[in-house]
Amino acid sequence: MANEIETPNINEQPLQLKVRGSFFVGGEGIEQTFVELGSQRAADRVTIGQMYVEYMEPVGATKAPIVLIHGAGQSGAGFDTTPDGRMGWFEYFVRRSHPTYVVDQVGRGRSGFDQSIFNRVGAGQASPDKQPKITRMGDRIASWINFRIGPDATKPYPDTQYPIEAVSALSRQGVPDLIASLPSPNPNYKALAALAKKLNGAILLGHSQAGDYPLEAALLDPKAVRAMVLVEPGRCNAEIYTADQIATLATIPLLVVYGDHLDTPTGIKGSDWPARFQECKRLIARLKKAGGQAEMLHPPELGIHGNTHLMMQDRNNLQIADLIIDWMETRAAGA
Amino acid sequence: MANEIETPNINEQPLQLKVRGSFFVGGEGIEQTFVELGSQRAADRVTIGQMYVEYMEPVGATKAPIVLIHGAGQSGAGFDTTPDGRMGWFEYFVRRSHPTYVVDQVGRGRSGFDQSIFNRVGAGQASPDKQPKITRMGDRIASWINFRIGPDATKPYPDTQYPIEAVSALSRQGVPDLIASLPSPNPNYKALAALAKKLNGAILLGHSQAGDYPLEAALLDPKAVRAMVLVEPGRCNAEIYTADQIATLATIPLLVVYGDHLDTPTGIKGSDWPARFQECKRLIARLKKAGGQAEMLHPPELGIHGNTHLMMQDRNNLQIADLIIDWMETRAAGA
Repeated sequence: MANEIETPNINEQPLQLKVRGSFFVGGEGIEQTFVELGSQRAADRVTIGQMYVEYMEPVGATKAPIVLIHGAGQSGAGFDTTPDGRMGWFEYFVRRSHPTYVVDQVGRGRSGFDQSIFNRVGAGQASPDKQPKITRMGDRIASWINFRIGPDATKPYPDTQYPIEAVSALSRQGVPDLIASLPSPNPNYKALAALAKKLNGAILLGHSQAGDYPLEAALLDPKAVRAMVLVEPGRCNAEIYTADQIATLATIPLLVVYGDHLDTPTGIKGSDWPARFQECKRLIARLKKAGGQAEMLHPPELGIHGNTHLMMQDRNNLQIADLIIDWMETRAAGA
Repeated sequence: MANEIETPNINEQPLQLKVRGSFFVGGEGIEQTFVELGSQRAADRVTIGQMYVEYMEPVGATKAPIVLIHGAGQSGAGFDTTPDGRMGWFEYFVRRSHPTYVVDQVGRGRSGFDQSIFNRVGAGQASPDKQPKITRMGDRIASWINFRIGPDATKPYPDTQYPIEAVSALSRQGVPDLIASLPSPNPNYKALAALAKKLNGAILLGHSQAGDYPLEAALLDPKAVRAMVLVEPGRCNAEIYTADQIATLATIPLLVVYGDHLDTPTGIKGSDWPARFQECKRLIARLKKAGGQAEMLHPPELGIHGNTHLMMQDRNNLQIADLIIDWMETRAAGA
């Protein structure tokens, strides 16, 4: 036994980074009035529409860069340390040799938002009904039930993978969501395409509200997107894309991932998970028919049960990451 | 020459981290209505007042933890990679063996804010004049002139240390500032005191708007604050504190740092740098009279010229950091 060599757990070794940091992509300078700037000194120029990006690049030989895009009511912090203090996907993908980029969606967190309309309403220069709604996910219904931690607020599924003892820390991760304030098309698409190009090609992984962002960014710059990973997407746009768009998307490998308990109806408006699951299956079918490499990863079919909508925070979050990484490295050409 | 041994530049070596990640401190759960949540599913509970904290802890023996607190219209991103892509203070303090914590102020960035009043106004449930102003720093006046990059918008001081070729990237770092939406007292004080205590004692470094936050946090929990570093503080509260408060603050080492070109009047309301400099000198005098160890670091007096308000981003940002670290390690007991 004394001679037994233990394989060191890579996750317990020091993290060695070649380089790390943050930067912003996209955005445009615009002039705003004294009132629009919150009565801040004088009329002046500001930048709006930029996207915050934090990143870590491991030492040694690296694999394809991956960009992690959070969902509604969250910032990129949701991909970092889990609410119960374990390693999140940001660090784990780095430890698996992928330079990893985490963004805050335009309109949220460190990317900021255009505050001008709120100040105009406050000053009586615009009608209150012109003011975009600022949404926040509530703890019991929008999170616990809708994210499929359990069928009823505070009651977990017996096999849930969510660290329910830390659910109050999940609540602290929530941020006001200014998506309703963004112009159309959503500037996140363009910013993500620009980021992927800047990285000389990247895998885009979008969660929930951002589930279809990899598709939309790929349509803007298909050569910059090496693979698309849709984790619990809120929509797959299966019937929206034209034949030409499907032909473009079919040139890029696609993986869709959905957790467990999809068939438990939540009865909450905007939370029809079975319908979303089926819609994504239809997108996969269209892409395959067009010659694409597209597939569904549904852990329950592999005997892995209890994953929630927030699988990057579930107890088996690294097991799910391993499945995604295995797909990237064996199925996704160029990744 | 072949035998010459070069001293490796520590800043070009891989960064080795014992642990890194993020978490939230503080905050309280409150109930909000359907309207207050932006018509998001149903009335529910959310957390407000929490503070986002990202951190890196180096391998090997470590020195005192330090917390970096950004100023108005910014997030913690301002302490990371500089606008022109150099290493910021976040990483540099880690490389100098200090476990380093960067926060987003409550009301900004990844800490979020209480959106309820905006949605109530939008729904006609509250008067627009009840809506707090959301401020944003403009490029020319609030930043360039007020931050003392130059005396006139786009015209730099000849000796400026700011990387003016990257000033558009500074503009992208700006975020809407919800400080006017916060209750009184500012919940950042309590969150910072809680963070310092959680770290078993920390040095607090506050910039600009957050210049007096280390003082306020120390008054809440003086034993948790090992030293206070005020970088270009917007106020020093020199005449506001009682004799008892001064006696408490005098138990903790204090350093105030101001850059160059203070005596060039900006003529901008709320930007009287000479008055702020003098006020902080008066605080230092009061603390010294009470037996405290308090001093001013004014780089021009050391022959270091051209530093702006944003000295963590200036070209000589690591030189300024070295001066602060030297003070921490030689003057600040317990740090």
